[in-house]
Amino acid sequence: MPGVPPARFGYLGPPGTFCEAALRTLPVAARGELEPYVSVPDALDAVRRGDVGAALVPFENSVEGSVSTTLDELATGEPLHVTAEVLLPVTFDLLVRPGVSLADVRRVATHPHAEAQCRGWLRATLPDAVVHPAASTADAAAGVEAGTYDAAIASPLAAERYGLVAAARSVGDNASAVTRFVLAARPAAPAPPTGADRTTVVAFIADDHPGALLELLTEFAVRGVNLTRIESRPTGAGLGRYCFSIDCEGHVADARVGEALSALRRACADLRFLGSYPRADGATTNPPRGVSDAAFRDAAAWLAAIRDGR
Amino acid sequence: MPGVPPARFGYLGPPGTFCEAALRTLPVAARGELEPYVSVPDALDAVRRGDVGAALVPFENSVEGSVSTTLDELATGEPLHVTAEVLLPVTFDLLVRPGVSLADVRRVATHPHAEAQCRGWLRATLPDAVVHPAASTADAAAGVEAGTYDAAIASPLAAERYGLVAAARSVGDNASAVTRFVLAARPAAPAPPTGADRTTVVAFIADDHPGALLELLTEFAVRGVNLTRIESRPTGAGLGRYCFSIDCEGHVADARVGEALSALRRACADLRFLGSYPRADGATTNPPRGVSDAAFRDAAAWLAAIRDGR
Amino acid sequence: MPGVPPARFGYLGPPGTFCEAALRTLPVAARGELEPYVSVPDALDAVRRGDVGAALVPFENSVEGSVSTTLDELATGEPLHVTAEVLLPVTFDLLVRPGVSLADVRRVATHPHAEAQCRGWLRATLPDAVVHPAASTADAAAGVEAGTYDAAIASPLAAERYGLVAAARSVGDNASAVTRFVLAARPAAPAPPTGADRTTVVAFIADDHPGALLELLTEFAVRGVNLTRIESRPTGAGLGRYCFSIDCEGHVADARVGEALSALRRACADLRFLGSYPRADGATTNPPRGVSDAAFRDAAAWLAAIRDGR
Amino acid sequence: MPGVPPARFGYLGPPGTFCEAALRTLPVAARGELEPYVSVPDALDAVRRGDVGAALVPFENSVEGSVSTTLDELATGEPLHVTAEVLLPVTFDLLVRPGVSLADVRRVATHPHAEAQCRGWLRATLPDAVVHPAASTADAAAGVEAGTYDAAIASPLAAERYGLVAAARSVGDNASAVTRFVLAARPAAPAPPTGADRTTVVAFIADDHPGALLELLTEFAVRGVNLTRIESRPTGAGLGRYCFSIDCEGHVADARVGEALSALRRACADLRFLGSYPRADGATTNPPRGVSDAAFRDAAAWLAAIRDGR
Repeated sequence: MPGVPPARFGYLGPPGTFCEAALRTLPVAARGELEPYVSVPDALDAVRRGDVGAALVPFENSVEGSVSTTLDELATGEPLHVTAEVLLPVTFDLLVRPGVSLADVRRVATHPHAEAQCRGWLRATLPDAVVHPAASTADAAAGVEAGTYDAAIASPLAAERYGLVAAARSVGDNASAVTRFVLAARPAAPAPPTGADRTTVVAFIADDHPGALLELLTEFAVRGVNLTRIESRPTGAGLGRYCFSIDCEGHVADARVGEALSALRRACADLRFLGSYPRADGATTNPPRGVSDAAFRDAAAWLAAIRDGR
Repeated sequence: MPGVPPARFGYLGPPGTFCEAALRTLPVAARGELEPYVSVPDALDAVRRGDVGAALVPFENSVEGSVSTTLDELATGEPLHVTAEVLLPVTFDLLVRPGVSLADVRRVATHPHAEAQCRGWLRATLPDAVVHPAASTADAAAGVEAGTYDAAIASPLAAERYGLVAAARSVGDNASAVTRFVLAARPAAPAPPTGADRTTVVAFIADDHPGALLELLTEFAVRGVNLTRIESRPTGAGLGRYCFSIDCEGHVADARVGEALSALRRACADLRFLGSYPRADGATTNPPRGVSDAAFRDAAAWLAAIRDGR
Repeated sequence: MPGVPPARFGYLGPPGTFCEAALRTLPVAARGELEPYVSVPDALDAVRRGDVGAALVPFENSVEGSVSTTLDELATGEPLHVTAEVLLPVTFDLLVRPGVSLADVRRVATHPHAEAQCRGWLRATLPDAVVHPAASTADAAAGVEAGTYDAAIASPLAAERYGLVAAARSVGDNASAVTRFVLAARPAAPAPPTGADRTTVVAFIADDHPGALLELLTEFAVRGVNLTRIESRPTGAGLGRYCFSIDCEGHVADARVGEALSALRRACADLRFLGSYPRADGATTNPPRGVSDAAFRDAAAWLAAIRDGR
Repeated sequence: MPGVPPARFGYLGPPGTFCEAALRTLPVAARGELEPYVSVPDALDAVRRGDVGAALVPFENSVEGSVSTTLDELATGEPLHVTAEVLLPVTFDLLVRPGVSLADVRRVATHPHAEAQCRGWLRATLPDAVVHPAASTADAAAGVEAGTYDAAIASPLAAERYGLVAAARSVGDNASAVTRFVLAARPAAPAPPTGADRTTVVAFIADDHPGALLELLTEFAVRGVNLTRIESRPTGAGLGRYCFSIDCEGHVADARVGEALSALRRACADLRFLGSYPRADGATTNPPRGVSDAAFRDAAAWLAAIRDGR
């Protein structure tokens, strides 16, 4: 990527969102320059143009930002590859200006999705507060800094960004909520397999007959490749025709994954490869009997011997 | 539903959103009382409590509101059934106060997802305008009414709601974008089949072995039941275990659909039925050979004769 | 079966064959009248006409008699049901007239298939003997009785039948060879399940597209029904179109087997039920999770409640 | 095959059987030396020893000889490959010594299977004749030549062999009966694909779990390879464990067939390749979309480009 400093990263802004918090957990981004974008398409287009080397965007279970927008943006337009993923526990704090106490809070701002996840706490602790919807949790924090609101429900990172402090920590009703983000970059050879990898593709089916999805999944299953996510997505003009956004275990360099993707390539109207990258949870893939790289090599040798009459 | 006037409907607000516009297309809601809720969980809980008879919420491809929140809210908590669906073409207008012309527009407000879908038009027509993110397109329209912004990108319905007029119509870059909403009510016997029905379920798989999803889909496929949407959703503590949110063609009263759902009920840790209802696109289901109700009746008679030795 | 004494049984003759030996192991035939038939079609037609109440014929791995003839005879014509099966270890003895010793044996008669299974022993023990082909091992024994040959390789039962004695026992090269026979009777309600049952059907596929067989087998697999035998058989005019002769575990009265057979009935051009009967090896069927009769009952109750809005 | 004249062929005898008739239809055998063997194992062992270059044996739907013996003999022991197949319409003639007329026939000899297939004709034309079982139709003809019987039901070829003439032609009840024979030789590189090929294998499954067969067939189905014959065969000690004898369309040199066989090789305890050879019926294989050699080449190039980051 000539001319693009690799230490420049985009993310779904504004500063102080969960997406920035997620990006800061990536060692590669620790000392990089981080650039907020107002939307996922903006962040991804910045990668495509080369303004940033990569961008982190929400991919699953997002508090803010539309996951379906991310799926659709990666499925179309100039190709991008996922090179890393981040799993971020969703921790909401109630942020106030220094010196403001919980008892002073009348007007609370936050994103509607965040409010939904903190409703139990709000009802129990601030039953009289009025909640104002903001475009993001970071916007809510900015509104507190500006004095428009008394408090914001936001990421802990937003406190630092906007000079606020936590009047209460972990105010979310579900302590185990997790959001998944992916780092998208311009296409290149994937990093070598680590043994705990994930591969993402988008499959555009050739026709919409009953069982078309089943056929796709069978291509993975016969090769012992486990799926970890699947979503049908409407394509083209309306909701009638579908593509499938799929994550599977393993790496495109693995024989079983390579053969499965080749099969999808043959069977589908189009198959877009979106990257092989290390799993954030570090879970090692244990392929079932008969689909290891060694098993594929042995079978290839056996076939060659038969074809050659050896 | 004693004490609940059936003509009272909730929706994802605020007034003037696409969700309200969708609700107004339903004949049953035409003369009803429509109540906005700040979030999908709030709208659905109002149904559960009986405050409203039903609520319309975004289900697929939403401009505003998180579809994954809707999926998860319907998958858990007190059961609800979908009784109708609405497909709404997404039409964005640029709304201003009466008397304001396009040339006067400097500050535009809208939801970030809406901005992303109108970026081409904005760049070409208002290259110097600054775009401010709002929590919803209706909030943006309210901000124009209040004089905070010069214009809002919003639903045509928002013009009427907030006393605005369109300075430009259909400013979205993709003229064929469609959002799907579902009407959720408390459980009751589904309305009879129309021949063009859809059924929605959530399947919680018993364990996460490779091929578990394939097995689920096979239960549909062997009975000639076509899927129209599938999404894996993480459950419980973290992203490791999954359930599947599924739409299929047909009605639970159809023999093939009933047998397929019974099979899923047997195979899954849990299966939640979320409703059988008419398709908004009116597309008739044409089951393949051998899975009509008549074919099921004939096979049942054949089996009974064998078991009885007739 | 008015007028047909149930204690009259046919079998593939002549007397002294392995088939008679197999029939004698069935308690129900112990005191019955046993009638030999020259061919499998003759034996089965005797059942159809009511000349005998049932007939035992070779079904798998036969030493004498064509298993494919049996398969085809049961697949066509007036329907018959299998009501029992017999597994007979194949034990070959070298039979001679009393007083004749091994050293005197020059001319040995047997059925060619039996010869093939005793070739090792013959080569080692009687290297100079000449082997004459007979139409059956019993015919060979009859030829020894008549003085045409010095010895016959035949079933131990043939010694008793033809006044011979064993000059050598267990002369077969494979001590574990087993033949399977089935008892065919006119259609009636199957005996109740024992928990260790087998069911036999013939499926005529509607068309010969790739994957037609796979679809059939999937109907069994999704309901946890294990197959124990499958053979494709050509039908009609030539070798181009196929039916499948199938044995599965379980009884037509089992919910999972009944639903699987009903599904085949719907999917196939024709499905012929050939009986549910106790397994000769007594192996109990252990259906996997979710396909017990109780699981089917629970799922049916669940479905009824949904359909009725309970 | 040094020292073995390729023009020497074995077959299941004695001379005058249908198997000899089938062998004579093969151009390669037209001027060869043909050697009868008393049994299928004898004929195949002669190939293994190099006494003959190849042997023709019955493989499907045999009038004489046990097809299951052939399947089992090819599945075990020193490997052999099928290099050709023959489809022979089964034509039975009633053979007599010259000068004998139909009215003179009292004693008819034939193989029991042949008798079963001519029963209708015998009943109508020779109701008073007594039928004697012979070890083969050729043995029956030999018995007529020797004066033991008046007539034999046998292959037209047997007339020539034993100096007989046909007193009646085509006396079989099913005019369209066909038997399939295969020519087995010692392993060598298969002849190149003709576009109308068949491939035969024996698959020994690793364990006997429900669905093991389904998994095998799925490996063929996902690659668009159609099966034309399948039979489960018991292996080892008793009838409890199974292997599968399988014919499929196509040639091991075809990409889709090669990948399917490699997959079986990986999945099975053992896979024995038994040959790729031209179909006797000349039916061209028309692989479905996406599994042509060109489609495999394109997918391989696509995969290589992704792995290399091109």
